[in-house]
Amino acid sequence: MNTFGNIFRLTSFGESHGAAIGGVIDGVPAGIAISEEAIQQELSRRRPGQSALTTARKEADHVELLSGIFEGKTTGTPIGFIVRNADQHSSDYDNMRDVFRPSHADYTYYNKYGLRDHRGGGRSSARETIARVVAGAIARQCLEQVGISIHAWTQQVGDIVCTKTWHELDLTQVDANAVRCPDAEAAARMERLILDVKADGDTIGGVIAGVIQGCPVGLGEPVFGKLHAMLGSAMLSINAVKGFEYGDGFAGATLRGSQHNDLFQSAVAAAPTQALTVTNHSGGIQGGISNGMPITFRVAFKPVATLLHEQPSIDINGKATTLTPRGRHDPCVLPRAVPIVEAMAAITMLDAYLLHQTTHLL
Amino acid sequence: MNTFGNIFRLTSFGESHGAAIGGVIDGVPAGIAISEEAIQQELSRRRPGQSALTTARKEADHVELLSGIFEGKTTGTPIGFIVRNADQHSSDYDNMRDVFRPSHADYTYYNKYGLRDHRGGGRSSARETIARVVAGAIARQCLEQVGISIHAWTQQVGDIVCTKTWHELDLTQVDANAVRCPDAEAAARMERLILDVKADGDTIGGVIAGVIQGCPVGLGEPVFGKLHAMLGSAMLSINAVKGFEYGDGFAGATLRGSQHNDLFQSAVAAAPTQALTVTNHSGGIQGGISNGMPITFRVAFKPVATLLHEQPSIDINGKATTLTPRGRHDPCVLPRAVPIVEAMAAITMLDAYLLHQTTHLL
Amino acid sequence: MNTFGNIFRLTSFGESHGAAIGGVIDGVPAGIAISEEAIQQELSRRRPGQSALTTARKEADHVELLSGIFEGKTTGTPIGFIVRNADQHSSDYDNMRDVFRPSHADYTYYNKYGLRDHRGGGRSSARETIARVVAGAIARQCLEQVGISIHAWTQQVGDIVCTKTWHELDLTQVDANAVRCPDAEAAARMERLILDVKADGDTIGGVIAGVIQGCPVGLGEPVFGKLHAMLGSAMLSINAVKGFEYGDGFAGATLRGSQHNDLFQSAVAAAPTQALTVTNHSGGIQGGISNGMPITFRVAFKPVATLLHEQPSIDINGKATTLTPRGRHDPCVLPRAVPIVEAMAAITMLDAYLLHQTTHLL
Amino acid sequence: MNTFGNIFRLTSFGESHGAAIGGVIDGVPAGIAISEEAIQQELSRRRPGQSALTTARKEADHVELLSGIFEGKTTGTPIGFIVRNADQHSSDYDNMRDVFRPSHADYTYYNKYGLRDHRGGGRSSARETIARVVAGAIARQCLEQVGISIHAWTQQVGDIVCTKTWHELDLTQVDANAVRCPDAEAAARMERLILDVKADGDTIGGVIAGVIQGCPVGLGEPVFGKLHAMLGSAMLSINAVKGFEYGDGFAGATLRGSQHNDLFQSAVAAAPTQALTVTNHSGGIQGGISNGMPITFRVAFKPVATLLHEQPSIDINGKATTLTPRGRHDPCVLPRAVPIVEAMAAITMLDAYLLHQTTHLL
Repeated sequence: MNTFGNIFRLTSFGESHGAAIGGVIDGVPAGIAISEEAIQQELSRRRPGQSALTTARKEADHVELLSGIFEGKTTGTPIGFIVRNADQHSSDYDNMRDVFRPSHADYTYYNKYGLRDHRGGGRSSARETIARVVAGAIARQCLEQVGISIHAWTQQVGDIVCTKTWHELDLTQVDANAVRCPDAEAAARMERLILDVKADGDTIGGVIAGVIQGCPVGLGEPVFGKLHAMLGSAMLSINAVKGFEYGDGFAGATLRGSQHNDLFQSAVAAAPTQALTVTNHSGGIQGGISNGMPITFRVAFKPVATLLHEQPSIDINGKATTLTPRGRHDPCVLPRAVPIVEAMAAITMLDAYLLHQTTHLL
Repeated sequence: MNTFGNIFRLTSFGESHGAAIGGVIDGVPAGIAISEEAIQQELSRRRPGQSALTTARKEADHVELLSGIFEGKTTGTPIGFIVRNADQHSSDYDNMRDVFRPSHADYTYYNKYGLRDHRGGGRSSARETIARVVAGAIARQCLEQVGISIHAWTQQVGDIVCTKTWHELDLTQVDANAVRCPDAEAAARMERLILDVKADGDTIGGVIAGVIQGCPVGLGEPVFGKLHAMLGSAMLSINAVKGFEYGDGFAGATLRGSQHNDLFQSAVAAAPTQALTVTNHSGGIQGGISNGMPITFRVAFKPVATLLHEQPSIDINGKATTLTPRGRHDPCVLPRAVPIVEAMAAITMLDAYLLHQTTHLL
Repeated sequence: MNTFGNIFRLTSFGESHGAAIGGVIDGVPAGIAISEEAIQQELSRRRPGQSALTTARKEADHVELLSGIFEGKTTGTPIGFIVRNADQHSSDYDNMRDVFRPSHADYTYYNKYGLRDHRGGGRSSARETIARVVAGAIARQCLEQVGISIHAWTQQVGDIVCTKTWHELDLTQVDANAVRCPDAEAAARMERLILDVKADGDTIGGVIAGVIQGCPVGLGEPVFGKLHAMLGSAMLSINAVKGFEYGDGFAGATLRGSQHNDLFQSAVAAAPTQALTVTNHSGGIQGGISNGMPITFRVAFKPVATLLHEQPSIDINGKATTLTPRGRHDPCVLPRAVPIVEAMAAITMLDAYLLHQTTHLL
Repeated sequence: MNTFGNIFRLTSFGESHGAAIGGVIDGVPAGIAISEEAIQQELSRRRPGQSALTTARKEADHVELLSGIFEGKTTGTPIGFIVRNADQHSSDYDNMRDVFRPSHADYTYYNKYGLRDHRGGGRSSARETIARVVAGAIARQCLEQVGISIHAWTQQVGDIVCTKTWHELDLTQVDANAVRCPDAEAAARMERLILDVKADGDTIGGVIAGVIQGCPVGLGEPVFGKLHAMLGSAMLSINAVKGFEYGDGFAGATLRGSQHNDLFQSAVAAAPTQALTVTNHSGGIQGGISNGMPITFRVAFKPVATLLHEQPSIDINGKATTLTPRGRHDPCVLPRAVPIVEAMAAITMLDAYLLHQTTHLL
């Protein structure tokens, strides 16, 4: 199932060491001016080789838009696109052809499909997320037209946590450092941790936080298309994600209703997208429908499975062996995952926005 | 969007104070013997009025299966069903007709649709989950045929946590107490907390844990239909759920790859559903596909929004008012949510099982 | 697959001799006043036992709406409904339990599913179309709000053809005779033919024509959701339908472009829904999108398979046998199929209408 | 809606004068050997410039497969592909920028989307069908593994009809002449007619017939996914198609049940795919499910709208004007549509085959 969305839909394809990553974006609203440069910019945020924190693979990641845009505007027809793979070192993976990396998709892909493209992880590679970033960058340009903006940032790496809320952060500074945490002090500590981990040939997990501002009341389609269920499905489909929560999430489970309830502002004169409720434990969604307050969520990433030191493993015959991956891998996916989380949020929000347009006969 | 699933699909309908809750279950495998009693038993686990911990609403919740079963077996045609509502006290809700409860779906439903059935929460009532429990009970009977079993239990209420893992618990004892925690000691403390909270007219959140055993290798459809994304979407669609994680989840974000990776058993002679890996930080899913190990997950519930004491609120004109709900409400949804979590897990797993049957030409 | 539609969706269930026929209608626009009487009226048009031309089965076919409507208006939540079966004579079918009727679904259902509910044709019975008529009656009430109307009529029975076009007919007179052909003279001849056929214990096929008026420009979703592909899929899903065409259809295949092209009115001052083009060979759809002209289509029905005289057949072991159905069957489905064709057209048009609302960001 | 299918799904993109036509094929069964040459061969059958009967546009139509195949076999991951456009003469269309061709998609696209890529018809061009042919060629290679074969041919051009049934024709000779009618004598007459029509700058319609052999019993998903409804939807989505019928189709509407019913062979010893019934009025499908007999169907094509002589028309302001298209156009689409019809049949049949695999728990 390589299609995501209901109305605004991304269908993606591509393997890490195949010819290209690409996809088709369907259901794009017509008449929207699209900046190719803005798409390319998002791809650059996701690109490998940005800093010492990321894999050394060199990829220009140049997107070629093949259809659906005419004289700079969307025509309402599907946008096909490809990003060529360039810097494959497929021979780096020769020793992994018949061996499964622990906690990797190697074993499960092989057993599900009966064969696999082992080079660079094949379809299970995070390189697949290029397609999401392209679609997300287009969705984002549509959402701008209706005043919805999305920010994500690295909130935690290992046990280093940026405890500031989005109110307290300057979200324009997410890209100011390599780790993509807008709190410079926390970012510095995260960066040191990642470099330490990298020096050990090890990897580390973390948490990305996000906030969606400017969302009107009414998005989300209960009971199975609740807005947070759509967002959760989007985030959980990203490689290495192990958990999703919104609003107070797991922490809210410890609270009483009298503590957790968001009281309405005594006079709801202000636009709901700013000040409907005094607090926002709900994270901007009630009953699966946006209430106009900022939508807040968190996404947990496990540490990357591929270590750069020897690990015991098994081969396709179930025999014990050892494995020392070569290849090029991120010690921590968080910095590069920030634009991916934003992309999936944008795709989901635009889809929800368009779905909501069918609630009434216009 | 009131349909869940791809092949095995539940489409549900019904309001809290309408004539009935019901649905259509499509894509049911043909030739499976179905016990109506087993369905009824699951409904009884979900039913209000079971104990002092739950709402006092009295409902027999008798399911009437209307189609799709002939001489005790599924025919492959859709199973329609209804459960009549009986004990509505709609007048209890008269005072909520034009007032929105804080942190409830009242405000968002009204603003999305332009009108709402205010009685008992209408479609946003947890009474909707009856349809899930019926479909789940049918899915579960199918899954039994292929050796897949599902257990969920109350792991946390407020800040009282049952720290034992599923290995250390006797999962046959989940229903042994009203709170549905198989650790009797923790259950007793949870129960006391719920009664305290109830005495205050307040509510409390918590966490339900689950484990799926006997799942073969290969279920899940990357990249957007990853097994945990399907499970996450299922759980997040349940009322009051604020978070989902599987395997080590958010806690795994603090680990290094060398700590988090699940090494393969040195000799993989044993069936993968028992002992593929030494540890199970992955929670039975790698790359979005089941690896044969038990699938573990956790679901966070916020405290119920409807308190039984006065709260400040607003009415449909945005004017400040106060609200003292009457109606009948659970101080804590966890005990009754256990069968709902199991039902959604069963629906998801059967759907994934059937989808996987299309991976190869047979 | 018992769900039809994309946004406005019918999911149906029910067997001929089961407890009930019913369904769930999802994606209903909110705030639409619904007349239950109008739904019941459509069901009465489809009901058996209306005249000497139809099966003698007696069914009140009373619809019970179970959800989704509050104080007479749709709430945007799904409408569940059931119609109880009453007058089953299941024992009439005892002799068909292990025998397959020629050209009937008996053989294929049995072989697909491995078992079947043989009573009254089970799920393959045209009684299933009750659910379509209910959904269609609701769709029609929505379409009225936007000025779209739908008429179908019996255009041909056997080789008796009503050659008048919809312009030449008074479509308010469709129900003026039992055969539902608004040309009284042709209707009389059709009626005689049906009675002759019935007297022989035989059955006869025919053609239903339809016209959709008031459709705005722009409905239809190329390239796979072309409006006529949606309509064709809708019609071909009705029992006994063997063909679908729109505009000039098969006859247009003999024409030259210079004959078939619909020239634009020289001055397109008039609203397109009335007079965009001089002719309408296209049948109101160009490139899969409505052009504002009336949409015209035709649907071919084969003769009913169940004859009331002895036929040679085989049993479930492949052995030759003979079969004399008892049961109650229509000699010609056309009269009762008119409201079904209208219902499927209404469901499709409303779905297309709502889908089109997502073409632009509003 | 640019996705077709349920399990085996094609999502396509591309405009006539854009950079490329392409798509993503998802749900491909794993482990199937794929011949790129066989795909290329089908594209060559569809390619413009094959003969004097077709448009003069010169396109190599070389397919580039970008993913989903590893060492010659499908991996179960999506197959992305592109076919570059080369021989665009976009300036030929400058005079059509603001003018609508009669009976063309120009007017409807412009009004639906508010803008359009007018060059070569943009998305409404039949060049879009390249993606179908690629997916169909892959589907066909899968179907070969299970013994299902598909043939289509030009049965009628204008009023010249090849009256022979598929039994009487040598279907290996479809490509023996430019018109793709395996009856050499009829083909010669059709060819003359097309050349006459072309000489007049005119166009002509026709009918393509098809037969699917080797289909097992059981494919098709009632009630809305009936096999013929899936096939009909597939065919009606092809440019210029105005009608679809299967079995006896519209002609069967004139028959009595006693004439139309297909009696079972007295001894059903033979495999159903050869000799289940004595006749085959049903066209291999009963109750929406294949019965093992050959599946027969017919598809009506209208004459191409773009004439090469002056026609009166209107511009985007509704003003009368005249139009003399330049561009390059087929006088008759039938010859090139044969591989497209086969492709859509193959896509549909593979999808139905895979769906049927979910009918039982395996």
